[in-house]
Amino acid sequence: MINNIALAGCGNVGTALLEILEAKKTALREKYGFEYKVVLVCDLMKGTVMDPEGLDLTLLLKSLHEKHSFQGLPQAEGAFGELLDRSGATLLAECTPTNLKTGEPGLGHLRAALSRGMSATTTNKGPLAVAFDELARLAKECGGKLGYEGVVMSGTPLLDLLKNGIAGCDVIGVEGILNGTTNFILTKMAEGMSYARALAEATALGYAEADPSGDVEGWDAAVKVAILAKIIYGLDVPVNEIDRQGITEITQEQVLAAKERGSVIKLIAGIDDASGEPRLYVKPQELPLSNPLASISGATNAVTIKTDHLGDVTLTGPGAGRAETGQALLGDMLRICSR
Amino acid sequence: MINNIALAGCGNVGTALLEILEAKKTALREKYGFEYKVVLVCDLMKGTVMDPEGLDLTLLLKSLHEKHSFQGLPQAEGAFGELLDRSGATLLAECTPTNLKTGEPGLGHLRAALSRGMSATTTNKGPLAVAFDELARLAKECGGKLGYEGVVMSGTPLLDLLKNGIAGCDVIGVEGILNGTTNFILTKMAEGMSYARALAEATALGYAEADPSGDVEGWDAAVKVAILAKIIYGLDVPVNEIDRQGITEITQEQVLAAKERGSVIKLIAGIDDASGEPRLYVKPQELPLSNPLASISGATNAVTIKTDHLGDVTLTGPGAGRAETGQALLGDMLRICSR
Repeated sequence: MINNIALAGCGNVGTALLEILEAKKTALREKYGFEYKVVLVCDLMKGTVMDPEGLDLTLLLKSLHEKHSFQGLPQAEGAFGELLDRSGATLLAECTPTNLKTGEPGLGHLRAALSRGMSATTTNKGPLAVAFDELARLAKECGGKLGYEGVVMSGTPLLDLLKNGIAGCDVIGVEGILNGTTNFILTKMAEGMSYARALAEATALGYAEADPSGDVEGWDAAVKVAILAKIIYGLDVPVNEIDRQGITEITQEQVLAAKERGSVIKLIAGIDDASGEPRLYVKPQELPLSNPLASISGATNAVTIKTDHLGDVTLTGPGAGRAETGQALLGDMLRICSR
Repeated sequence: MINNIALAGCGNVGTALLEILEAKKTALREKYGFEYKVVLVCDLMKGTVMDPEGLDLTLLLKSLHEKHSFQGLPQAEGAFGELLDRSGATLLAECTPTNLKTGEPGLGHLRAALSRGMSATTTNKGPLAVAFDELARLAKECGGKLGYEGVVMSGTPLLDLLKNGIAGCDVIGVEGILNGTTNFILTKMAEGMSYARALAEATALGYAEADPSGDVEGWDAAVKVAILAKIIYGLDVPVNEIDRQGITEITQEQVLAAKERGSVIKLIAGIDDASGEPRLYVKPQELPLSNPLASISGATNAVTIKTDHLGDVTLTGPGAGRAETGQALLGDMLRICSR
């Protein structure tokens, strides 16, 4: 069966997905039996192109790379659901910008696809934060599957580990470095840089946004730990009810004093389940060097899953990045289509 | 569908599997839709018990805990394949002792099960070392599935990560701490203990066997890295052709000198694919503390998978243990039955 891919959102991540799909076309068929056409690409800025016979990916990528546009490709207009119907799409990759309040436009895209019985993958935290249960139910009722590996650690496969890798284990706690920007800043501070200069460097490198408060005040990590609590425990914890403290009040003196003591300060997002009632938190903690999270430096992410029968399992990897997040979409598609 | 489980090998690991199955019977049904009966248990020392209606697990575990025997359970006799037929088994869990030369008795058990169209899981490196291709082909031809998560890092789900978690990525190298005994010894040496005393402590704790050469000369890590090369690259590399060096010639002076330099000596099992021709090795290496493997202490295992689009992904967890290895069998069964 050939998978007819619709792509919603063609910025950095969407373009990376198209690049990987094109570069690995033969390998994906031979190794995974995965065949595809890209039949629909929508982008808020660039417009919409569609071809039920499959868009010319080489031409599309050339136009994206050279002109940041869909020039030369067959344009289309219409409501998203109607475009899915007309294009014959069977599989949606959703990577539009995140809106944590409304979930839109991703939520509408996912609803349209799942309600048609399509499977979908998203790297967009918004729809999951707003309507996790609805989307899961929609997928189940309509016979599609929904993958979202990219929302917590980009492509680093934490969610597959939780769902399949440790299947059979009870999770009794989580401890993670889930925000690369703050970990980069704390790493630089431990090397002697001031908070202000480390933040400026994070911004210059594209890790931090113009308004860095989502990162440095712990909101991004809180959203991610709420998603983990939903996946692991089925819990609905409003992000603003999470015990949350960012790194804005961490001083260079504190970081260097911890270093003197042979330890390190990290912004830890966790779920404490010792009491049997999972408690979510995001806060700076001083870790001994023997903690596997202590050695995680720069923008890398890492999560320790505490289990009943496997002890502590730690997964470390990039928590962001253009190719990484594009790969997250591809990984979901391969897992969806192989099962 | 109820899975009729046959268990071959009822030592520590097999008993742990039975304990987990009994303790989680309700949870496995509710969370994974996994229902089971244990219809056959064979052990070289304890004999064979069988009941197509399902053995009384409570009674079986009581007898194992109190008398290390199958006393009070319905005994059976016959060739293994015939016992599978008579018991109505549909799923084999294989954890007999490892023989790396012949693969037996595990190889015969797996052949019997897979050739009948059953699925199987094993924690036994022997059959895979001897007949990986044959078993994979047998599973494919007869419609069963074969899981072996336990053979490399016990239950720490490295193989699921390689097969599903990073699906779509190209692996361009592997670097791992795959032998807990030697890592324990090197950790103790870095704390100031002599090699001889650290080895004695590893033996006392049950990490090292009476003859520790399989661990300290790197054979165990070499077998594991050969299995990884098979899984990742489809390569057949005879274990005795792997560039292998153990830790027997590492002196306390070397370990402490590395520590002085702010680094650490680890026994690294790896696959170097920089040249496009994967090269397997097992050897002590001095790692900077910034390497995620440097902070892995004691009997813990860890593997870094170097990929094209996800950078370095590191998985850390227990590499051995009774409950861990029993969990590996259960995890495979859940993955087999959910797909």
